[in-house]
Amino acid sequence: MHRVVEPAGVLPQAAWRLDPRPEIAANEVRIRVERLNLDAASFRQLFGKHGGDGDAVRAEVLEIISTRGKMQNPVTGSGGMLIGTVEEAGRRSPLGLKAGERVATLVSLTLTPLVVTDGLARWDGLSEQVPCDGWAILFARSIAAVLPEDLDPQLSLAVLDVCGAPALTARVVSRYVAERAGDARPVTVAVIGGAGKSGSLSLAAARQAGAGRTVGVVPVSAERDALVAAGLCDAVVVADARDPVALSTAVTSALEVPADVTVVCVDVPGCEHGAVLATTDGGTVIFFSMATSFSAAALGAEGLAADVTMLVGNGYVPGHAELALGLLRSEPGVRGLFEARLAAD
Amino acid sequence: MHRVVEPAGVLPQAAWRLDPRPEIAANEVRIRVERLNLDAASFRQLFGKHGGDGDAVRAEVLEIISTRGKMQNPVTGSGGMLIGTVEEAGRRSPLGLKAGERVATLVSLTLTPLVVTDGLARWDGLSEQVPCDGWAILFARSIAAVLPEDLDPQLSLAVLDVCGAPALTARVVSRYVAERAGDARPVTVAVIGGAGKSGSLSLAAARQAGAGRTVGVVPVSAERDALVAAGLCDAVVVADARDPVALSTAVTSALEVPADVTVVCVDVPGCEHGAVLATTDGGTVIFFSMATSFSAAALGAEGLAADVTMLVGNGYVPGHAELALGLLRSEPGVRGLFEARLAAD
Repeated sequence: MHRVVEPAGVLPQAAWRLDPRPEIAANEVRIRVERLNLDAASFRQLFGKHGGDGDAVRAEVLEIISTRGKMQNPVTGSGGMLIGTVEEAGRRSPLGLKAGERVATLVSLTLTPLVVTDGLARWDGLSEQVPCDGWAILFARSIAAVLPEDLDPQLSLAVLDVCGAPALTARVVSRYVAERAGDARPVTVAVIGGAGKSGSLSLAAARQAGAGRTVGVVPVSAERDALVAAGLCDAVVVADARDPVALSTAVTSALEVPADVTVVCVDVPGCEHGAVLATTDGGTVIFFSMATSFSAAALGAEGLAADVTMLVGNGYVPGHAELALGLLRSEPGVRGLFEARLAAD
Repeated sequence: MHRVVEPAGVLPQAAWRLDPRPEIAANEVRIRVERLNLDAASFRQLFGKHGGDGDAVRAEVLEIISTRGKMQNPVTGSGGMLIGTVEEAGRRSPLGLKAGERVATLVSLTLTPLVVTDGLARWDGLSEQVPCDGWAILFARSIAAVLPEDLDPQLSLAVLDVCGAPALTARVVSRYVAERAGDARPVTVAVIGGAGKSGSLSLAAARQAGAGRTVGVVPVSAERDALVAAGLCDAVVVADARDPVALSTAVTSALEVPADVTVVCVDVPGCEHGAVLATTDGGTVIFFSMATSFSAAALGAEGLAADVTMLVGNGYVPGHAELALGLLRSEPGVRGLFEARLAAD
């Protein structure tokens, strides 16, 4: 809070300008930054605005960081994440970081005080990956993960970017498994967008948490083939998630019953009603898509008289980074999907 | 589904036009309609568009109903509810209604086939209350409540309109009470907008479900005085729910700890971060406000590293109408707030 310059009294994410001075308070940590990963929507907006002129993109990113004391695109409101090395950790910081550790931040750049010292000279302004020198400040409530030495940092970053989804899925599925202990009915899980990053991790997490039958829903046959090959779920179906009847029919046919837990991982609008219809009475829908409409979900469930619990997918669950990295290590299918995606980028 | 005329294959709520013919299928119910209650946002839009000309408002409502086969404002997308008498119930209808019962629908008019036969001749077009003759069709998944004979129908309607909030609050609070059985710590509940319709019912429901300490948050001192007089909670505080620090400080001071369960019942944007900050780790936020931003909630909780469960307030919970009407009967404080509100309208 003491680093919020204006407007006074708001939280860092909502602030227009943060104070990025390098001296840390006892509960702060200073990171020597080596790379920023700009949010995809933010980079797309900047790239489009400047007609693909990398020098102009770089100049605007520099201008944003120097004006605001953080990297938050004023149009999209989004930031990104960073990689760096712990330079100094305050003695009362609860993050458990030590000087010299290589870390990635798991909270958005939108609330991270940041200074760039090299003018972004090594960046051509043409990709989301921004090599840079500078420093950033983490707060007591920030989240940072130490990058594992056994994994390619790009692979770790891609996993950490979505690690909230498998963690929350595991928590919810575990609850159903515990409630149904001694009951013969398997806990059923549907993941909409099962071949994507958050989707494939969620399928693996659901199975590890004890789901008895799982289905991945994908939009096209290429993704179906990839997800079948990955072997992460009991069934894979192709369906348009925006068509409620098609989606619920596909899920219910594949599982033989509606899903106990439905996880929405596709970033397209209009999946709310289908997800509700695909879920059994007493079941839970977890919305991880930022394209989710709150009112469509609330009014849709009411209009369908559907007694389902609907969760706003919280990207933070304690232990989420370790859980997701563990799934990447233990599930070759997850790793294969991630590596194919990184290779294609 | 068989009543959806266009576009084919969508759910009734999303359809442009429904088929309102009076012959019912075995799982349908036909209602003789006596009154429509237009959604407030819908009426406001129509009234403004026509500059307060009641005849023009009436003509447009008639036009909408005859064109679409339902009352759904094409601009706001919203409908309302209706009161009427059961005329015929199909033999396989699961709603449990009998001919002659006076009922209110608890699903939106946006998905209810409707025909008006009196040209709305008794309505001046100047209020949300529309006396009328005609019929409406309820589906198997529709929800209708029999209007109690011991209560003023307007009072019952006002309660039924928000009855999902106390029902879901009771369910969530009960779970915390059960988990903490044998533990000395009371379950704490904060209701943002505690003096409103859904807020006052939620406070009463939380206490009935076993909450040990409850606080109602209100925006102005007049509401504070009314809520204190109603005696529905242990503390009442005035705070701006859009100011995260002010809100969380007010709640935490009043409860002596952050809330286990925070219920958001105020229809103003920007309450997400404050609600998350006011809630303890492992706690739950229930969003009933249609002004809730999905992404503000999701990104806010992640940015704050807050391990809170966030629920999209589903207006449908089995037994919700009976629970809410029961609270109105048993809690003079709830009844007083509702009667004062109706008198002021």
